[in-house]
Amino acid sequence: MKLTKEHQEEIENQQSQNNNTKRVISPELEKILFEAIPALDHGFVRVIDYMGDDTSIVQAARVSYGKGTKQVSTDSGLIKYLMRHWHSTPFEMCEIKYHIKLPIFIARQWIRHRTANVNEYSARYSILDKEFYLPTSENLATQSTSNRQGRGSVLEGKQAEDVLKLLKNDAERTYANYETMLNERYDGSIIDENKKGLARELARMNLTLNTYTQWYWKTDLLNLMNFLRLRADHHAQYEIRVYADIMLDTLKKWVPITFDAFMDYRVGGTEISSKGKLILQKLIKGEAISIEKSGLSKREWNELMEAFELKDKIV
Amino acid sequence: MKLTKEHQEEIENQQSQNNNTKRVISPELEKILFEAIPALDHGFVRVIDYMGDDTSIVQAARVSYGKGTKQVSTDSGLIKYLMRHWHSTPFEMCEIKYHIKLPIFIARQWIRHRTANVNEYSARYSILDKEFYLPTSENLATQSTSNRQGRGSVLEGKQAEDVLKLLKNDAERTYANYETMLNERYDGSIIDENKKGLARELARMNLTLNTYTQWYWKTDLLNLMNFLRLRADHHAQYEIRVYADIMLDTLKKWVPITFDAFMDYRVGGTEISSKGKLILQKLIKGEAISIEKSGLSKREWNELMEAFELKDKIV
Amino acid sequence: MKLTKEHQEEIENQQSQNNNTKRVISPELEKILFEAIPALDHGFVRVIDYMGDDTSIVQAARVSYGKGTKQVSTDSGLIKYLMRHWHSTPFEMCEIKYHIKLPIFIARQWIRHRTANVNEYSARYSILDKEFYLPTSENLATQSTSNRQGRGSVLEGKQAEDVLKLLKNDAERTYANYETMLNERYDGSIIDENKKGLARELARMNLTLNTYTQWYWKTDLLNLMNFLRLRADHHAQYEIRVYADIMLDTLKKWVPITFDAFMDYRVGGTEISSKGKLILQKLIKGEAISIEKSGLSKREWNELMEAFELKDKIV
Amino acid sequence: MKLTKEHQEEIENQQSQNNNTKRVISPELEKILFEAIPALDHGFVRVIDYMGDDTSIVQAARVSYGKGTKQVSTDSGLIKYLMRHWHSTPFEMCEIKYHIKLPIFIARQWIRHRTANVNEYSARYSILDKEFYLPTSENLATQSTSNRQGRGSVLEGKQAEDVLKLLKNDAERTYANYETMLNERYDGSIIDENKKGLARELARMNLTLNTYTQWYWKTDLLNLMNFLRLRADHHAQYEIRVYADIMLDTLKKWVPITFDAFMDYRVGGTEISSKGKLILQKLIKGEAISIEKSGLSKREWNELMEAFELKDKIV
Repeated sequence: MKLTKEHQEEIENQQSQNNNTKRVISPELEKILFEAIPALDHGFVRVIDYMGDDTSIVQAARVSYGKGTKQVSTDSGLIKYLMRHWHSTPFEMCEIKYHIKLPIFIARQWIRHRTANVNEYSARYSILDKEFYLPTSENLATQSTSNRQGRGSVLEGKQAEDVLKLLKNDAERTYANYETMLNERYDGSIIDENKKGLARELARMNLTLNTYTQWYWKTDLLNLMNFLRLRADHHAQYEIRVYADIMLDTLKKWVPITFDAFMDYRVGGTEISSKGKLILQKLIKGEAISIEKSGLSKREWNELMEAFELKDKIV
Repeated sequence: MKLTKEHQEEIENQQSQNNNTKRVISPELEKILFEAIPALDHGFVRVIDYMGDDTSIVQAARVSYGKGTKQVSTDSGLIKYLMRHWHSTPFEMCEIKYHIKLPIFIARQWIRHRTANVNEYSARYSILDKEFYLPTSENLATQSTSNRQGRGSVLEGKQAEDVLKLLKNDAERTYANYETMLNERYDGSIIDENKKGLARELARMNLTLNTYTQWYWKTDLLNLMNFLRLRADHHAQYEIRVYADIMLDTLKKWVPITFDAFMDYRVGGTEISSKGKLILQKLIKGEAISIEKSGLSKREWNELMEAFELKDKIV
Repeated sequence: MKLTKEHQEEIENQQSQNNNTKRVISPELEKILFEAIPALDHGFVRVIDYMGDDTSIVQAARVSYGKGTKQVSTDSGLIKYLMRHWHSTPFEMCEIKYHIKLPIFIARQWIRHRTANVNEYSARYSILDKEFYLPTSENLATQSTSNRQGRGSVLEGKQAEDVLKLLKNDAERTYANYETMLNERYDGSIIDENKKGLARELARMNLTLNTYTQWYWKTDLLNLMNFLRLRADHHAQYEIRVYADIMLDTLKKWVPITFDAFMDYRVGGTEISSKGKLILQKLIKGEAISIEKSGLSKREWNELMEAFELKDKIV
Repeated sequence: MKLTKEHQEEIENQQSQNNNTKRVISPELEKILFEAIPALDHGFVRVIDYMGDDTSIVQAARVSYGKGTKQVSTDSGLIKYLMRHWHSTPFEMCEIKYHIKLPIFIARQWIRHRTANVNEYSARYSILDKEFYLPTSENLATQSTSNRQGRGSVLEGKQAEDVLKLLKNDAERTYANYETMLNERYDGSIIDENKKGLARELARMNLTLNTYTQWYWKTDLLNLMNFLRLRADHHAQYEIRVYADIMLDTLKKWVPITFDAFMDYRVGGTEISSKGKLILQKLIKGEAISIEKSGLSKREWNELMEAFELKDKIV
């Protein structure tokens, strides 16, 4: 990631702000505010603004439950209780805003999370930067044969080189032709003064899906955790997980108590169906189990055995 | 409105906070942060937290439009442009959180605005305060005869007195019986040590709809304006308008440029149907108009003439 | 529940409709369409309209996964897979609309589920019916001493009688005074021709929270399941559970395959934290466990032991 | 647009369904149900399912307003009233589901409307079809010089030919390389049995933004109108307007009364700011107006004069 001088100055300018406020602050998050944390080859994650901290969740819960909440004596105990029992509304009382730079094909995955506010750089108005994602060789994975949406082993040798060359060449050529059609370069200079340029809203269609875009993305803490639960998971595509992992770290700085509860109950937690529960109960009692009598499909059976590291039970 | 000593201390404690932040602040809003602004007889509006200011809207818009926004030279010009052309997403980048105390029948109207986050005091957990709304005599309006949901003239004399007495007596009696059923007073003291109390989730059903409740209510700037546009309007019920008017004032302190654009384009603005537009065009040209040829219903015709203060045209 | 003659005729009229459509239908749901299924003493649940069936979920999933879905050979297998892996969007492709009559204090709980569309009977425009909820004696529970929002044993003898009398008297008196203030009876007749009535939007504040209201409530299948998961649960208040149980039955008629998966994975399923999982793994291996080393609070420990029916482990 | 034989058969199969239902139907919409209406060069719009018709809006409004609605005597009068006064919830009671095939750069614009349900074809699971959008020569517009996001005159002659050639060549080359990297053709055949293919979730990044995707898109009537108001507008990009215009026609078939009100109040309607209203009032009275005293910017002034076809007043 290389920032333009202009962008670097803007960040420094933002970071030098020092305002007084009666609002709660999150000291660890303040330290990295506005900083461009690198993601993939040209992307970044920046925290731009936030509202509330761990105490805001407690404050909202105590309004809801009134004197009733006094039973749970500590903030940490209350937050854990809320997380465990899916009392979600207090977590909606905190808000965070990111500035993200990311490849378009990842942006398309991301945007499916609808309960967020988005302002994306518009290629109808402006010319997109000449930046596109190229995987490193260790991320050049083959199609998984067992899982339709998964990755298998890494491509090697000549084939890996060829793939990288194709990706690079195609992105560069389509971008060059984008400029030709616009009759304008990405720095705003005109190519041929005697020609008109194709409308930007049309020319952009020639770009490849690994071109970088950027947006402001704002969401509440509950929906951020929903996003991270899915996108920091090992089933998520590597390229979005890179962003989710960085954001998981900003979550920890922002609301450390909530982060711990989230890791314990959501990220590290497991869901078990009613049929799966019966199997576990038999295992605990030392009774015999069999896939035939379990009512589970082979896939479900194996997922359960893997979750509890009962490798000898996998069929 | 009379705050408990406990609540008064909490507010003073919050107001004495003085934190350093790199985030943008809104100086005028900081001044009234946490303050309990009185509404109706026992209610209040408090601003508890906020995120962003006018510049946050501009910042988001400039990310969207990139270099394209440089055409609009000032922040104020850009905000007006966004408002006029219903470019709504930049306004979603600011967030505000209120603590509101309000009668239940108003809370039921309010909650219909779904795009907000809410944590309400729970009468399943805790005992509601002994506070209920009683209108002042000048707000004791009769049912309008022309408008099904409107108010007519004010009730007078003996009838007004009777109504106020009924409201007061019924609220007091049902509240006293609420305590009897709970076998517990609102201060937590037990009434009869030899009895059990009815479950709170049941006893609450005996309260009247003018009983006060309270909640934390958080929304983004766009949805706040949608709320205020409807609820600060003269068609809105007086009792919710009291809250909306206070919030309109907090909007002005928070984002003064946006407030001006909102007043000009939304609150003071008018919508005209395609048929209505044809009438106005004829009026401007000095041509004759008639309701028969207009395609407008009598109601639409009169609404148009009233909007443009053409009182002699009302039929 | 007693329907007015007018409402009874409307229902019969709706049920006699017989239209031809190319849309998918749900035969079992068609049988009970428009029927008023009784709930509590005066309430009801009616299914008014619906869109889609089990095959609509499969159809949407197959568009998403394209040829990839051919691996999962049956509709039932695919729906289970989607449910297990929280692939939620295909379930959003079905929609259902209910007409519900319910007490106001339950409506206030219900409305917290925001992702639904609602049209409620307006007491600003019209006079509410003279109907209020009175619990049966077996539902007259005391406040739980162990759980702030729960119910304990049932009130008995004289105290139960007294409570019922209070509830009945207060509801009747406040309703009578509502009519007095309106100067109009619920059938529309005027009480005193020489008086004006108080505005409806004001008079309604005198009613108690057990007064019945009604609304049209429309939601998609995903959000219906989210609602039912919380409200058909044994932690939910009895009075809302009555509605949820009826709706669970309409879910079964509407989308029987989805219903089965929902009962297995959501309603009958269990969530386990990462710490809880370690305990279960030790139990399966026959290793010793102790609350001290578990990192679980007493409450969490007991919840886990109860979930797996390990009663001797409860501390 | 050319459908595969498989898809053609599926459509015919769906259209031959003939079910009995007690639900309301929309006869004109039934006629075109499932039909693939062509859009652009390879896209289509298909109505897949719907719920409700004009009477459903009336039904919901009458529940809301109770006996209060009897004042408005006809369904048409009530729907117009609701539209005029922004009573939006009754329009949320109808729902429609489309199957859409569209270029990715248009899909990215479309998805910003968040209040809809979407299931998109996943290029993580499956291989995208070899289809990409190429504008016809009359839609090959230059960048507008006056409006940052608008189009100017049409490109002509050699330059137009060159642009079309570039677009076509780049799309074909990147698609061919997509297949090479996948080591698989779009029909599923393997290219080189001795090689592994790059993971689909990676290979897709090489495609250009004019590649076609498809999705199921479901929304309620209110949000459909919000979408159409913006996207059938002449400010919208031509390529999305093509879809919006087709959908406007399906709206007319589905809910003809609502369609008329929508065209009159929303599409053909105009909004006027408080300052603009003062100008119109002066014009009606025959008083002199001047931009200097109006408080309007030049842009606002001209927009107002254009809206009322006062061309001689444009400055």
